[in-house]
Amino acid sequence: MQGHKPGMKKNTEDEFVFLPLGGSGEIGMNLNAYGYGPADDRTWIIMDIGVTFGDAATPGIDVIMPDPTYLESENVIGIVLTHAHEDHIGAIGHLWRRLKAPVYCTPFTAYLVKDKLREAGLIDDVDLNIVPMKGAFDLGPFHLRLVTLTHSIPEPNGVVIETPLGVVMHTGDWKIDPDPLVGEATDAAALTEIGHRGVLAMVCDSTNALVEGTAGSEADVRKELIKLVGELSGKVVVACFASNVARVSSVIEAARAAGRHVCFVGRSMKRIVAAAQSVGILKEDAIFVGEEEAAHLPDDYVLYLATGSQGEARAALAKIAHGAHPAVKLSSGDTVIFSSRVIPGNEIPIKDVQNHLVERGVKVITDRDRDIHVSGHPCKDELRQMYQWVRPKIAIPVHGEARHLKEHAALAKSLQVEQTIVPRNGDMIRLAPGAAEIIDETPNGRLHLDGSRLVQADDSALRERRKIAVVGHITVTVAVSGKGALVSGPALCVRGLPDLGDADEGEAIEALEEAADDAFSALKPVQKQDPNQIEEALERAVRRQAERIWGKRPLVDAMVLTV
Amino acid sequence: MQGHKPGMKKNTEDEFVFLPLGGSGEIGMNLNAYGYGPADDRTWIIMDIGVTFGDAATPGIDVIMPDPTYLESENVIGIVLTHAHEDHIGAIGHLWRRLKAPVYCTPFTAYLVKDKLREAGLIDDVDLNIVPMKGAFDLGPFHLRLVTLTHSIPEPNGVVIETPLGVVMHTGDWKIDPDPLVGEATDAAALTEIGHRGVLAMVCDSTNALVEGTAGSEADVRKELIKLVGELSGKVVVACFASNVARVSSVIEAARAAGRHVCFVGRSMKRIVAAAQSVGILKEDAIFVGEEEAAHLPDDYVLYLATGSQGEARAALAKIAHGAHPAVKLSSGDTVIFSSRVIPGNEIPIKDVQNHLVERGVKVITDRDRDIHVSGHPCKDELRQMYQWVRPKIAIPVHGEARHLKEHAALAKSLQVEQTIVPRNGDMIRLAPGAAEIIDETPNGRLHLDGSRLVQADDSALRERRKIAVVGHITVTVAVSGKGALVSGPALCVRGLPDLGDADEGEAIEALEEAADDAFSALKPVQKQDPNQIEEALERAVRRQAERIWGKRPLVDAMVLTV
Repeated sequence: MQGHKPGMKKNTEDEFVFLPLGGSGEIGMNLNAYGYGPADDRTWIIMDIGVTFGDAATPGIDVIMPDPTYLESENVIGIVLTHAHEDHIGAIGHLWRRLKAPVYCTPFTAYLVKDKLREAGLIDDVDLNIVPMKGAFDLGPFHLRLVTLTHSIPEPNGVVIETPLGVVMHTGDWKIDPDPLVGEATDAAALTEIGHRGVLAMVCDSTNALVEGTAGSEADVRKELIKLVGELSGKVVVACFASNVARVSSVIEAARAAGRHVCFVGRSMKRIVAAAQSVGILKEDAIFVGEEEAAHLPDDYVLYLATGSQGEARAALAKIAHGAHPAVKLSSGDTVIFSSRVIPGNEIPIKDVQNHLVERGVKVITDRDRDIHVSGHPCKDELRQMYQWVRPKIAIPVHGEARHLKEHAALAKSLQVEQTIVPRNGDMIRLAPGAAEIIDETPNGRLHLDGSRLVQADDSALRERRKIAVVGHITVTVAVSGKGALVSGPALCVRGLPDLGDADEGEAIEALEEAADDAFSALKPVQKQDPNQIEEALERAVRRQAERIWGKRPLVDAMVLTV
Repeated sequence: MQGHKPGMKKNTEDEFVFLPLGGSGEIGMNLNAYGYGPADDRTWIIMDIGVTFGDAATPGIDVIMPDPTYLESENVIGIVLTHAHEDHIGAIGHLWRRLKAPVYCTPFTAYLVKDKLREAGLIDDVDLNIVPMKGAFDLGPFHLRLVTLTHSIPEPNGVVIETPLGVVMHTGDWKIDPDPLVGEATDAAALTEIGHRGVLAMVCDSTNALVEGTAGSEADVRKELIKLVGELSGKVVVACFASNVARVSSVIEAARAAGRHVCFVGRSMKRIVAAAQSVGILKEDAIFVGEEEAAHLPDDYVLYLATGSQGEARAALAKIAHGAHPAVKLSSGDTVIFSSRVIPGNEIPIKDVQNHLVERGVKVITDRDRDIHVSGHPCKDELRQMYQWVRPKIAIPVHGEARHLKEHAALAKSLQVEQTIVPRNGDMIRLAPGAAEIIDETPNGRLHLDGSRLVQADDSALRERRKIAVVGHITVTVAVSGKGALVSGPALCVRGLPDLGDADEGEAIEALEEAADDAFSALKPVQKQDPNQIEEALERAVRRQAERIWGKRPLVDAMVLTV
C-alpha cells in the first residue's frame, strides 16, 4: 500500500504532499502531516496530534487517537500544534515516543502541553519550542509562519507552510470574531497578504460548513451574560468549557457587574484559569472565593463557574445536579446557565443533568433560551471571507464529517477555487508538482487507550467485552483424569445472566451442570482424553441449555484440568 | 408504602385517583392508571401500556417497560389503548399475563395489538374489544368516551373518563392538525362540549411544551414532498416512520405526481401498510412494485419508502447506506430524504447513516434543509387552545421529561388552571374529593426484557455485564486435593483484556499463573483446605497482576475443584 505508484513519476523528483491521518471524515482527532522531498525520502512535519473520547459504544475506552504507524518509520522533523484543544494536542503524551520529534507551539498551548508531558513522564525528553504569536521558524524544507486567528480558546493559529513547490495555508480551527475579548482579532492583513503572494492549497476547518451566516462574537455573549446574571437572584452556576478563556472572562465580568464573587468549581476549570493567568491573558480582578468560603456567602453574592456542560458524569455539574457535590448545593430559586452547545453524542447525559436540576426546582437556561453561546468554527459567510482572502488554487476540507467536507468542497467550488479534494484519512495527496491528486493510501486507523495499552480499534478485547455485555459469560470447569474419567465438576461460573430468583437460580445451575455432565458422558472414551473435544462439547451443551433458560446465548468457556 | 395514609380519610369514602407508572418524568413508556373506590378496595383501569427501547447504556436489553407490580394485586378491570405507537401499546404482550384485564382500542390499533398478542401466544386469552372512533363504553364505575384527536398515527384518541366524583380528560398523544390527511381533524366541538360540562382534571401530553407556536400540518409536508420529489432525478429513497400513515400516503402521492412507482422497503413498513389498508385508511392507488421489479426499473421511475430514519442498524436504510442491502443500491446522483426528526439519543447512528450515504455520493435531505417533517405533539399554542377548550380545574402534565413537565405546568398555571401537579412515576394523586394531592407513593420502576426474562432495571446481571464491558473478565481455575495439595492448574481464561501481541501474550498468561501459584503457596495449610479462602487469594493475586500488565482491574473469578 505504501510508497509510490511505479512508473508515474521518478522517485527523485521533489513532491509536496499532504496526509491526513485524523481530521478528515470525523471530528475530534486531528493529526495531519505535510511531506516534502522525493517519494522514497520525504521529510515530514506533523500538524496537531489530537484525541477524541470513547462513549457507551466503546466501553472501557476513554481516549481514542489516530494511528501514526505510517509516520513512525518516516523522517518526522517537527510536531506543530495550532492550539490547545484536546482534539489537537491530546495525543502528544500517548504518541510522542513513537514520533520523537521536536514540538512547536505558542505559550498558552505550551503551558497545557507541559502538563501532558509531565503526566506521561516525557517532560525531560521532549524538545518543546515556544513560538511567539505571529512567529516564524524553519523546519527542514518547510518555512512556517503563524497567523493569528480567532477561536474558542486563546492563541489559535493558522500556519502558513512555505516550500519551494508552493505555499499551503493550514487554518487549524478558526472563526472570524471581530471582538474576541481575549487575544487579537483575525489577522486580516496577514491573510490578505498571503493571498496576494499566491497560495497553492488551503487545508481548512469544515465544522460549520452546513450552517449559513456567521458564528457570532464572544463580545455579544458577554453582553447577554451580564444582562442575564443581573436579572437573577439565588445561587447562579454557569457551566462552560474551561478552555474558552474569553467566555470564562465574560462570566467573571457578569459576576462582577452583579456584585457576585466568583467560585471556580472543577479541576479543569482551575487548571485552565491557572494557565491563562500564567501567560497573562486572564486579567480580570474579580473577587475569587474558594468553595468553602462561597458556601458561607449569601446566595446572591456568589457565582459558581463550573465544568460539566456536556453532562460528563464525573464533572462538577453532574455532581451538583445529583445533589452529590460536597460544596455546591442547589435548590428551588437557583439557576444553572449552560453557556455552551450540545456536542453531538452528549444529548442524553446533558438532558439527564438538566432534568435532575429541574427536579430539584433549579431553573435551567440554555443557548436555546438566551444568546449565551457562539460557536468557535466558521459558518458559510466566514468560509467565503477566508477564501476571498487566501484565494488558494486547491481547497482541502478537513475537520468534519463526510457531510461537512462535501458541503465545504461545494462551497469552495462555488467560489471559483480551481480544485477541491475531499480526502479520507490515509489518503496521501500530492499538492505539487502538477495537478493535485491522491497518489497513495497509507495505513491508517484509530488507536484505543485500553487500560494502559494502546491497541488497534478492532482489537478483539473490545469485541469480546461488547459481546459479553450483551449475552453474558459462563465458564464451566471439569477435572478429568488422564484416562478420561470425570474426577471433579462440572463447576459453573455464571456472570451477567438475568436474575431468576433464589429458587429458580439453583435449578438453573443444576440444569447447566446436568447438561455439561450429559455432554461429557456422551463423549466416546477417546474423546474424553482430548481436552479440546471435551471443551467443545461442554461449551455447546452449556450454551444450548443457557439459551433454554434465559433466551440468550452467552459466551461459554470450558476449562479442562487434567489431574 | 402502599395503601392509605392512616387517619387522614376514612377507608370507606370513595376516591378518584390517578397513578402514573410510566409517562411522567420520561418519554416513551406510558402506563397510567385511574382508580375509583375506597382506598382499600379500588377498581382500576389502565390507560396505555407502552415500552421504550434500550441503547448502548443497556447492552443486551432491547425493550424496557414500566413495572406493573403495584397494579398486579389490585382490581384492574380494563386496559384502554389510546393509539398504536410502541410507547403506548408495546408492553401488552409482555405484561398482560400479570394484569389479565380486557383490552379496549379502536380498529387500527387492534390490528397491531393482535400481532403482538399472536407473537406472545396470547391471542386466544385476551378479551380484545374493538371500540369505534368516538365510541363510548362503561368499565365499572368509569364511563369512557373516545374523542378524536390528531397525531402522527391513525386513530389517535383522547379519553373522557367520567366518574361520580368528576371527569378527567386524558389526552394521550395529540396535536392540532387542521388537515391531518388521514382520519378526521381534532374534534373541537366535542372538546368544547366537554369543557362546558366541567372537567375536574386534564392529564396531558408535554412532549413539545418547550416549543413555541404550533407543530404544523401533514398537508404542508405533503405539498413540500410533492415539490421536492418532483425536482429530483436518479433514485429516490424516503425514510419515515412506518406508523405515520398520513406521511406514507403523502410520499405515495409525491411518487405518483413524479411518475414514480413506489417500492416499500423494510418489514415494519410493509406491516403497517397492510394494517392501514385492512382498515381502509390507506386508499392510495399508486403503482406498488416489489424490490426485485424496482431494481429493473430506470432510476427515475422508482421511489423507495424505507424504515430506518433513526439510524437503526438493522433497518433497511442503514443497510442501504452501507451498500449491504440486497436490492437497493445507491450511488452518485441518488437522493435520500429523511422525512423525520432526530429522536434524542439517536443523533450518532443517524449521522453515521447520513455520512455513509454522502460518502457514496448520495445527496441527503433532512428537515433542516426542507419543510418535510412536522411533529405529532402539541406546541405551546396548541396546549393553550386545548386548555381553553377543556378548562380543567387540575392540570397534570405527563409524557415528557422533567423540563417539559415543569414548563407545561407553568403554562397551565398562566392559563388560570387552578391547580397543577407534576407527578413522578408511582405518585398516587387523589383527584377527588377535596383538593388534588399526592397521597401515596407506590412501588414503581422499570423492567428490562433481558433475553426472555423480564427483570428489574437494577438487576445485577446488567451491572455485571457493564462492568465486564469496561474491565474484562478473567477466570482462574485450580484442582486441589482434600488435603490441600495443588493437583492441577492454575489455568486461566482471559476475556476482554487488550491484545499484547503473541510474544507478550504468553508472558502475560505466565505472569498471571505465577501470581496465582504464589498466592496459593502463600496460604497456610488449613487455608488450602478451604475453597473460599483459596478463591479469595487467587482472585486478589490475579487481579493485582492483571492491573500491572494491562493497567485495568478486571473482574476475576476463581474456581476451585476439589479432587
